[in-house]
Amino acid sequence: MRSTLRSFDLAHLAHIELLTPDPAASLHFFVNVFGMTESGRRGDSVYLRGWDDYERHTLKLTPSPVAGMGHMAFRATSPEALERRVAIIEASGLGKGWTDGDLGHGPAYAFTTTDGHNMEIYYETEWYAPPPERKPSLKNQAQRFPAHGANVRRIDHVNLLTSDVAELRHFMEDVLGMRTTEMIVLDSGREAGAWVTVTNKTYDLAFTLDHYGARGRFHHVTYALDSREEVLRAADIFLENGVFIETGPHKHAVQQTFFLYVYEPGGNRVEVDSAGARLMLAPDWQPVVWSEAERRKGQAWGLKTTDSFHTYGTPPIEQYVGTRRPI
Amino acid sequence: MRSTLRSFDLAHLAHIELLTPDPAASLHFFVNVFGMTESGRRGDSVYLRGWDDYERHTLKLTPSPVAGMGHMAFRATSPEALERRVAIIEASGLGKGWTDGDLGHGPAYAFTTTDGHNMEIYYETEWYAPPPERKPSLKNQAQRFPAHGANVRRIDHVNLLTSDVAELRHFMEDVLGMRTTEMIVLDSGREAGAWVTVTNKTYDLAFTLDHYGARGRFHHVTYALDSREEVLRAADIFLENGVFIETGPHKHAVQQTFFLYVYEPGGNRVEVDSAGARLMLAPDWQPVVWSEAERRKGQAWGLKTTDSFHTYGTPPIEQYVGTRRPI
Amino acid sequence: MRSTLRSFDLAHLAHIELLTPDPAASLHFFVNVFGMTESGRRGDSVYLRGWDDYERHTLKLTPSPVAGMGHMAFRATSPEALERRVAIIEASGLGKGWTDGDLGHGPAYAFTTTDGHNMEIYYETEWYAPPPERKPSLKNQAQRFPAHGANVRRIDHVNLLTSDVAELRHFMEDVLGMRTTEMIVLDSGREAGAWVTVTNKTYDLAFTLDHYGARGRFHHVTYALDSREEVLRAADIFLENGVFIETGPHKHAVQQTFFLYVYEPGGNRVEVDSAGARLMLAPDWQPVVWSEAERRKGQAWGLKTTDSFHTYGTPPIEQYVGTRRPI
Amino acid sequence: MRSTLRSFDLAHLAHIELLTPDPAASLHFFVNVFGMTESGRRGDSVYLRGWDDYERHTLKLTPSPVAGMGHMAFRATSPEALERRVAIIEASGLGKGWTDGDLGHGPAYAFTTTDGHNMEIYYETEWYAPPPERKPSLKNQAQRFPAHGANVRRIDHVNLLTSDVAELRHFMEDVLGMRTTEMIVLDSGREAGAWVTVTNKTYDLAFTLDHYGARGRFHHVTYALDSREEVLRAADIFLENGVFIETGPHKHAVQQTFFLYVYEPGGNRVEVDSAGARLMLAPDWQPVVWSEAERRKGQAWGLKTTDSFHTYGTPPIEQYVGTRRPI
Repeated sequence: MRSTLRSFDLAHLAHIELLTPDPAASLHFFVNVFGMTESGRRGDSVYLRGWDDYERHTLKLTPSPVAGMGHMAFRATSPEALERRVAIIEASGLGKGWTDGDLGHGPAYAFTTTDGHNMEIYYETEWYAPPPERKPSLKNQAQRFPAHGANVRRIDHVNLLTSDVAELRHFMEDVLGMRTTEMIVLDSGREAGAWVTVTNKTYDLAFTLDHYGARGRFHHVTYALDSREEVLRAADIFLENGVFIETGPHKHAVQQTFFLYVYEPGGNRVEVDSAGARLMLAPDWQPVVWSEAERRKGQAWGLKTTDSFHTYGTPPIEQYVGTRRPI
Repeated sequence: MRSTLRSFDLAHLAHIELLTPDPAASLHFFVNVFGMTESGRRGDSVYLRGWDDYERHTLKLTPSPVAGMGHMAFRATSPEALERRVAIIEASGLGKGWTDGDLGHGPAYAFTTTDGHNMEIYYETEWYAPPPERKPSLKNQAQRFPAHGANVRRIDHVNLLTSDVAELRHFMEDVLGMRTTEMIVLDSGREAGAWVTVTNKTYDLAFTLDHYGARGRFHHVTYALDSREEVLRAADIFLENGVFIETGPHKHAVQQTFFLYVYEPGGNRVEVDSAGARLMLAPDWQPVVWSEAERRKGQAWGLKTTDSFHTYGTPPIEQYVGTRRPI
Repeated sequence: MRSTLRSFDLAHLAHIELLTPDPAASLHFFVNVFGMTESGRRGDSVYLRGWDDYERHTLKLTPSPVAGMGHMAFRATSPEALERRVAIIEASGLGKGWTDGDLGHGPAYAFTTTDGHNMEIYYETEWYAPPPERKPSLKNQAQRFPAHGANVRRIDHVNLLTSDVAELRHFMEDVLGMRTTEMIVLDSGREAGAWVTVTNKTYDLAFTLDHYGARGRFHHVTYALDSREEVLRAADIFLENGVFIETGPHKHAVQQTFFLYVYEPGGNRVEVDSAGARLMLAPDWQPVVWSEAERRKGQAWGLKTTDSFHTYGTPPIEQYVGTRRPI
Repeated sequence: MRSTLRSFDLAHLAHIELLTPDPAASLHFFVNVFGMTESGRRGDSVYLRGWDDYERHTLKLTPSPVAGMGHMAFRATSPEALERRVAIIEASGLGKGWTDGDLGHGPAYAFTTTDGHNMEIYYETEWYAPPPERKPSLKNQAQRFPAHGANVRRIDHVNLLTSDVAELRHFMEDVLGMRTTEMIVLDSGREAGAWVTVTNKTYDLAFTLDHYGARGRFHHVTYALDSREEVLRAADIFLENGVFIETGPHKHAVQQTFFLYVYEPGGNRVEVDSAGARLMLAPDWQPVVWSEAERRKGQAWGLKTTDSFHTYGTPPIEQYVGTRRPI
């Protein structure tokens, strides 16, 4: 199970579009509880950012009858890298074609994963230019520290549900050029989870088996905080604001992230985390493979994983219709 | 002052050899105060590692009449990347040729910087295999958390002194393929400092003007801790062990690192730091350029930089002889 | 349910004697994992201390066929306060009489609680005088920071199990002059837990209903750390050393302590905690009373309390014999 | 230099009135930067509180031509303790008589210190009753965690300047019944500073020699945060808001507090600090006496104390007139 070499064509996870059936409550949550900054509106969508995100936005909030992920995006390393990667995606048969871009970024190439998740890549972007009241004191910082809510710093990673982990992992490795850093493989040999990266972060994207066998669902998006202490304080803030805390704060065994999962009012799971100084610097890292027995030990310090963490995703399965296949 | 694109041929800062006139005291410091693990000996040298370093060692401690840096090394991304880069270095005229490698790594190509610092690059390495008493509980970790001394996690960066910042920066960009993320430029136009990276860390190497105009001197090597709280606790530990604290803990304005500088008993400056979740993800980051006026404001929260931080390096200038030129 | 006023006759929780069926393993745990310092031996017992405990010891470790608490002690505010309080205890009929004291402290008056726990109070004590290698750099500190294991700072509180919370609470209030700060009262009106204090800490002693109806059992002793970050790091250290983590790290709803419970090798439950800046300064604080419904919400951030936390104590109930009455 | 025993008549430091020549800017600072909550207005004064202060307010902000302290107050342990202490103060000749109280507390007995600082003590108080939007999720908490600005938790201590430390110390010990925990004594035998407490905190009040020999001036008031990490984050917030940072964050040698001093816009020095788990539990603590030589070593980790910290107080000395005596 040797991982392909990281391609360097993708620079980093860029943004995510979350669909929410309760846009006002979701916006209140992301601004006043998460501590994000609104940086634009277009159509029904509101664009948001963490104080250290360098692009105009990393979160696009769009009203929708059901919760879920609209799409997610990666930024390419260069215009040439974008072209290279688009050619490979097109060859995979999963390309959907170019869009004109969106508020904050230029032309993007849209495609779906093998499991039906909507993704896009682009190169041209708008660096965030803070208005005077958001100008930081230190010029090497994207925006003033907000001192408001949980003060999320920057987008960290996205976690998807999938009906076929191995297939999606091969797509991420072979088509998008990502490197797999950790995996869960069941006793049957079936892959149950994979963590992949395009950076020195140990993962930018993760995906785990959909409990219901559904396709293309969303598990969570995570924003990074600077310390575990900030994650604990975020728990206090979620508690004070009546936000549903699903599990945490605790430390994952896989990837060792210090995690805290909550549901935003639209029903999507969101996380704040802290990785400390953990990075993936080795160019020849071989995936760490966790067995069923190892995973049964629970999280790093013994916490049993909450059932809903293994089953709940958006759109919620009860509202599943049409081409998707709930079990 | 547009930075060249990062080349991806170098994977990361790999190790440093420190020369010490008091090897026993230096070893005691790195093991019992810094909290490193001895992972080998060859000749007079002792090899040491932080608990999260994946290679066998990141610090080689070698007895010497005077303190300073023996050499520092980068690991290449692949055998092909190593070859590519060696060809470019040879073309620069600063190559010294191949060595057989050292304890823990394979053949290395040695060269000097424009300022005379000894460096090498290699690809083949030995992943650290912990003995039973150092085996971690979580299999995705290089070594058991030591719970001893300051518990330094992994090598973070090296800082050099140079007689010519601009020349060295061009070498790092053009020959080694690094990207410059921040700089200090004097009112005269002369460059006084530069921070360069080969990873998503905002710097792996920094260099500043040698106060005495000397060539090839060493400023400090830094090990990363997971949190600012751990840096503060390290200060307590340095205090208790009679270690000279030069400056800190405080937050740099440049790069915003939370720093703490001490002198190990051999006389070399060493640092523990924490960067929080700060990373350099943008592929088109333009160097932040600090002016003299901006630097006069002191560090991030106003601390004036200690004089010795601008003048002291190893070898100490008083022992400087021969081809080097103290002012 | 108005609490009596705090009497000021008792100065603070002083020490605890833990009984262990595996003395060598327990000693290894407290020294190398908890990070305590051995400060004396007498008979079969070993005396231990946290680095900020001002008395010679706060933990006495004594071999015994079964785990449990040998006794616990409070220090009086003055010789006069000791006499006053002894008279009141004698009048209660629970006094056992004076002892000659022990290593580190002078004559002590022994008594039992209404539930049969062994306690004593004394005034004369020996201030810890560190040997040269444990002398701190700052003269206002009891001992050098050890930089070893979890570095527990000072004894914080003891938690007992009891067959009758209300009776024990009245004893603590009326006879020992403690103040009740928080309580759990069942829908039936029966008291299920109480937290009492003799200081500005919000509790020095707690007691909860023994699940088995047994008398005089021990729940846990807690040592304080300076920050929640240190509690998290302690969890890493427990994990690395194969220590059984029962529950945590998490934040209690009652008292809001950040907790982490483990079993030392002898079978006794021990805790490390952090209270932040939380203190009980109001002289007329009225007990916070938690209902069954409120406690069903779990801990502060929603963690369900582990079953064993409600049932397990030492001596373990299976070994209960004689006058005690398991259900 | 044996300290008198603590009397227990005073329960804790209750509040301070700060005078500000720029009331609007001061109010903005305390609400939006410090993170306090406005809990009342009367006359020109605004009343403020930290989220864990149990009384209605701990800070009264009053417009005035010059900065300084209006008065500070202690709450007595009981009505009887109040009477006892008032009798002693009256006997000292420094009593000023009873007032009707103020918004949030009942009748107070006013007096001056030997150096002319205005103080008062009272027993009857108003417990803060949060409006619905400030109701905490946990019932054992005074107010919802604000997640705004530096989130100061509770008033911690006040520091005064005095023309005669020994005289003021004797007043605090003999008349107010405080205990001295640490002192600075010059080589000449003159006392230069003293830290006194009425609680298990290691100090509630400190006073140091006025550089100008002036009488009755104010040095700073401090609010506590839960962790050193929060103090560091407060530094970021002060930086972002253009607040003048005088010194810190760093650790004091005396009392080992982790400190950060800034000037609020009215010119008064204010501090945020963290003490970790440090408490003064020993009933017979003898004052730690620091010599000139020891103080010359700087703060705990070597930081030299800024000159202004030794000279600046409010009212600023330049505006000193009349009965006060600048040197």
